[in-house]
Amino acid sequence: MLIVMDKDASPAQIAQVVAKITSLGFLAQPIPGGSRTAIGILRNPGPVDPALFLDMPGVTQAIAVSKPYKLVSREMKREDTIIRLPGLEIGKGRFVVMAGPCAVESELQALTIARAVKAAGAQLFRGGAYKPRTSPYSYQGMGKNGLKILAKVREETGLLIVTEAVDHDSLKLVAEYADIVQIGARSMQNFTLLRRAGHIGKPVLLKRGMYATLEEWLMSAEYIMSEGNPQVLLCERGIRGIGDHARNLLDLASIPAVRRESHLPIVVDPSHAAGRRDLVVPLARAAVAAGADGLLIEVHHDPEKALSDGAQSLYPQQFADLMADLQTLRPGGWC
Amino acid sequence: MLIVMDKDASPAQIAQVVAKITSLGFLAQPIPGGSRTAIGILRNPGPVDPALFLDMPGVTQAIAVSKPYKLVSREMKREDTIIRLPGLEIGKGRFVVMAGPCAVESELQALTIARAVKAAGAQLFRGGAYKPRTSPYSYQGMGKNGLKILAKVREETGLLIVTEAVDHDSLKLVAEYADIVQIGARSMQNFTLLRRAGHIGKPVLLKRGMYATLEEWLMSAEYIMSEGNPQVLLCERGIRGIGDHARNLLDLASIPAVRRESHLPIVVDPSHAAGRRDLVVPLARAAVAAGADGLLIEVHHDPEKALSDGAQSLYPQQFADLMADLQTLRPGGWC
Amino acid sequence: MLIVMDKDASPAQIAQVVAKITSLGFLAQPIPGGSRTAIGILRNPGPVDPALFLDMPGVTQAIAVSKPYKLVSREMKREDTIIRLPGLEIGKGRFVVMAGPCAVESELQALTIARAVKAAGAQLFRGGAYKPRTSPYSYQGMGKNGLKILAKVREETGLLIVTEAVDHDSLKLVAEYADIVQIGARSMQNFTLLRRAGHIGKPVLLKRGMYATLEEWLMSAEYIMSEGNPQVLLCERGIRGIGDHARNLLDLASIPAVRRESHLPIVVDPSHAAGRRDLVVPLARAAVAAGADGLLIEVHHDPEKALSDGAQSLYPQQFADLMADLQTLRPGGWC
Amino acid sequence: MLIVMDKDASPAQIAQVVAKITSLGFLAQPIPGGSRTAIGILRNPGPVDPALFLDMPGVTQAIAVSKPYKLVSREMKREDTIIRLPGLEIGKGRFVVMAGPCAVESELQALTIARAVKAAGAQLFRGGAYKPRTSPYSYQGMGKNGLKILAKVREETGLLIVTEAVDHDSLKLVAEYADIVQIGARSMQNFTLLRRAGHIGKPVLLKRGMYATLEEWLMSAEYIMSEGNPQVLLCERGIRGIGDHARNLLDLASIPAVRRESHLPIVVDPSHAAGRRDLVVPLARAAVAAGADGLLIEVHHDPEKALSDGAQSLYPQQFADLMADLQTLRPGGWC
Repeated sequence: MLIVMDKDASPAQIAQVVAKITSLGFLAQPIPGGSRTAIGILRNPGPVDPALFLDMPGVTQAIAVSKPYKLVSREMKREDTIIRLPGLEIGKGRFVVMAGPCAVESELQALTIARAVKAAGAQLFRGGAYKPRTSPYSYQGMGKNGLKILAKVREETGLLIVTEAVDHDSLKLVAEYADIVQIGARSMQNFTLLRRAGHIGKPVLLKRGMYATLEEWLMSAEYIMSEGNPQVLLCERGIRGIGDHARNLLDLASIPAVRRESHLPIVVDPSHAAGRRDLVVPLARAAVAAGADGLLIEVHHDPEKALSDGAQSLYPQQFADLMADLQTLRPGGWC
Repeated sequence: MLIVMDKDASPAQIAQVVAKITSLGFLAQPIPGGSRTAIGILRNPGPVDPALFLDMPGVTQAIAVSKPYKLVSREMKREDTIIRLPGLEIGKGRFVVMAGPCAVESELQALTIARAVKAAGAQLFRGGAYKPRTSPYSYQGMGKNGLKILAKVREETGLLIVTEAVDHDSLKLVAEYADIVQIGARSMQNFTLLRRAGHIGKPVLLKRGMYATLEEWLMSAEYIMSEGNPQVLLCERGIRGIGDHARNLLDLASIPAVRRESHLPIVVDPSHAAGRRDLVVPLARAAVAAGADGLLIEVHHDPEKALSDGAQSLYPQQFADLMADLQTLRPGGWC
Repeated sequence: MLIVMDKDASPAQIAQVVAKITSLGFLAQPIPGGSRTAIGILRNPGPVDPALFLDMPGVTQAIAVSKPYKLVSREMKREDTIIRLPGLEIGKGRFVVMAGPCAVESELQALTIARAVKAAGAQLFRGGAYKPRTSPYSYQGMGKNGLKILAKVREETGLLIVTEAVDHDSLKLVAEYADIVQIGARSMQNFTLLRRAGHIGKPVLLKRGMYATLEEWLMSAEYIMSEGNPQVLLCERGIRGIGDHARNLLDLASIPAVRRESHLPIVVDPSHAAGRRDLVVPLARAAVAAGADGLLIEVHHDPEKALSDGAQSLYPQQFADLMADLQTLRPGGWC
Repeated sequence: MLIVMDKDASPAQIAQVVAKITSLGFLAQPIPGGSRTAIGILRNPGPVDPALFLDMPGVTQAIAVSKPYKLVSREMKREDTIIRLPGLEIGKGRFVVMAGPCAVESELQALTIARAVKAAGAQLFRGGAYKPRTSPYSYQGMGKNGLKILAKVREETGLLIVTEAVDHDSLKLVAEYADIVQIGARSMQNFTLLRRAGHIGKPVLLKRGMYATLEEWLMSAEYIMSEGNPQVLLCERGIRGIGDHARNLLDLASIPAVRRESHLPIVVDPSHAAGRRDLVVPLARAAVAAGADGLLIEVHHDPEKALSDGAQSLYPQQFADLMADLQTLRPGGWC
């Protein structure tokens, strides 16, 4: 249920509605909009009677929200959410590129790649310090030392940092070091981690799970938002497909479909979807043309020696060519 | 096995290789290239000994073809195949748009839509006279009368015609009336129909099956080519996905992947993939950006009254806007 | 819409209802039951007003059928359909085993295997004379000579014959020779073939398509029934799954789900689902325990030399052991 | 690499091999078998030269392990793993039934159901105190109070307890209260949680992820085992399927396939796979017939009022009937 207030509703009237919701045992979530405030009712186990609110002063409408998600939905908030970073905004027609290696391997490696992607026009550096790996025997990342290298990259290049947290411990550290905290596909339904990500005070990039529906993905974003963090950025990275021509099956229809359902921005990771270098550029172009708010691209200066996912990393020159190419696909809206 | 001849090999030397292959009980398929001829060995149940050919005059190489498909593969033919139609070529950097209703419903309906899509820049008119339908009680198309209307559309507008054949009887008729014969997703493994499509002397547009791998799809194209029809045009239309945000899951990685494996051109049908109008334009844009050779788009002047698939048909004005928009995505390569 | 007649309704009353339906432009399909007759209304584009029938003499009920399928549905016919063959009935608690090689290869091969499966207790011999193959270069079956061998097998062993038809030509021949005509997974939506199978006067075994929903499968059965052939036997054979531990993913929930929706019997093919011998026996046992009406099992006396699908064929002794084992799973209901 | 020792190898010889492995920078994992000891080499980044070990005293073989998993594989350990609980063993031909509600709701509810399932023959009580839910607004379980109720159930009925842990905090508590700790489908790749489950000293029931391959699932078991906990019990619960006739698609081929690859026992949860009561019994029967080591079944005395998953819970009488029925499917091997 969404209680929509008059344009001229007073703070006291809003407070009264919040108090009424609370007295019923539910959670009230005021959502200030451009011209009026709405108040979402959360944690109600079943339908709420609109009559309870319609005769309160300052209330114009009580809208039953038919979707299982609330805070993430356009029904609750019509305006596009903008992710605000130091010197950079994501969403609402702006476009952003996050590029770098799958894993941070050394300061030299990270800085070499960071300088290349910065020169080509990227605004954020991506690189994993904590790597979720199918095998316990695979390289699991540099951990905290990797985060320190990422901080150095930001200091030296001015690129902002996005990197993944995989559990409670890494979340606290990553939130300290990164500008955007990534929650990976395998953690999309790690609900405790999502709730904690609601309290870190940093934007969260939430990847779609390996075979998650849009509804499940948006519900996971709802977990983060319901704990008080409205800065959620969705990332389409493909779902499990068939055959072996690509690692995953990039679902670009999710871009317009998410935009219809939600106000949250959405970026695309063509590298994990492709799994092989020669597919990355066509898929990156396609994502831009379909209306993505940004891209997350793997770049490595020496992919043959990369500790993970080298086969899908672009060479710096390929990345630079792609960046030039993308300009022609978005003549107006470049960030 | 592919026997590659010298640049200067004489017709007699080529004939000798063909005779040798035939004498072994296999089928020889000469493939003239730009600078030299290769001869494919088909219908061999197992590996063929290259030594049988390497000492014959005019032979330079005997290449074991590792893929299950042969005639469709780039290993066999390096140059892109171009589909040649009266006044139009498809493939090799050219771009083509086929637009029209899901089903032909009347002469007035067909002509109204045809004039609109022609004005917006389409080169072919699409419209079903034979509709494969999940239910025996659904509208199954106008049949031969629909084909006559399509012929009228070509006569009046100059648009070329693509329409579907669903069985032996309709194939004969469609091949008479259409410029390109469509084999639909549900018929992708109707092998008898594919073989017959190898004899119609018209280009064939082969849609990917509902959940077919790229290899299965290319093998189906091989059926058509192995009967002597080299004019095959592939059409990606999405595979069964998850959730309900789109009807099918458009697999745009198939474009670069097909291009790597095969010399055949590939177009995309975003309408059947989307299943809903608001997703068609973003997916059409994405397909172009990913490198498709063309698009197949449903347009209807009165989609609410369409006898099938109205919900995914663009209005004529939406289609015209899309056409203008696509120009900016392909500044150079427009057909 | 289903018009249910009184127990004592006269033939003339039934004829009146049929005439009324026809006069409305729809198709009337009388469905005689054990105690009363129902009349299905087919080809109605939209809902039909029950009031049109409720006051006619002999009519007790007019039931709106909510499913897209009609003749196949339990709403239309409550009693289980029994497939009647010479000396054998399938369905309604009886259990049947169809066993034999993937492809008929020679008279000696077919008779050798037939004698083995007969001795172990099978009631039908399965073996392909027409093989739908992904590659045009794979073995396509013996054709009519294979059918003649199958007739010989029946003559010599008394086993009934089930074998696949792949197109119009083979359908006519197979219907002449076989006791049950199989429509394979790849033909499940070959609607022209389905319609023709409605006219052959022999039972049809309809395999589930590679990635078909239950509704699509039942709609395909509806195609056959709507042309007048009520003898349809469904066959679950797995859908495309993930990973490589089995060829397909056997969906045993389809057994109770089909039984709830439809009166048609359902058998299971664990051999195609498994794709490997060691999985066939556990899956066959599971299918019986889940309530299947029968099994379709590949058996070959020399699977290493089989022309197709040898890896999934049981050795005769394995099959005999399985047959003995299955008795313990169905102590009462063996056919 | 697996170093297999002589039957008569002395502890000192074993220690020497362990020391050699350690000196190479790898991890040595001795695996005592019935008649001889093998020593697994873990954490080796690439192949290890067998010659390094073959001439050491007491060594008979050095086997390269080709699978990505090691400790879970049959190559490493030929004998079936048996899960040992107070008064109960799971695996190796024994059969176990775990039954109870989806969520613990009250002491009265838990005891009522526990007494019913105990009377019908279940050995373990299942019931969630921590519920991973797609929505942050759904009922999330009673937490520690639920665990206390479960302890009471064990005390009163003698049933052992299996219940789910969803994060670090709940894992510690659950490990204290439960006899088997469940890791749910959504946590199958929560690698930090898996590692921690390697240290709890209690058996772990690891559910297959929503769309995980067998290899991914076994790799997740490897995470637990690689931290020193060999008591892992796998649980098949279906993967995402197509259509809506069942909630998930139960993959019973995983039972024989897991048994071939791994020595770990495997049980089946037909309730979550089915999603609806009428499918649970046929799927439970099928799982037993396919060779499962046990079942996990939802039972509720008042499913219409259940706080979660009521629609798939059996009534106590249905469960009792199923238990009687299962006896006939496993005449010999009942636990």
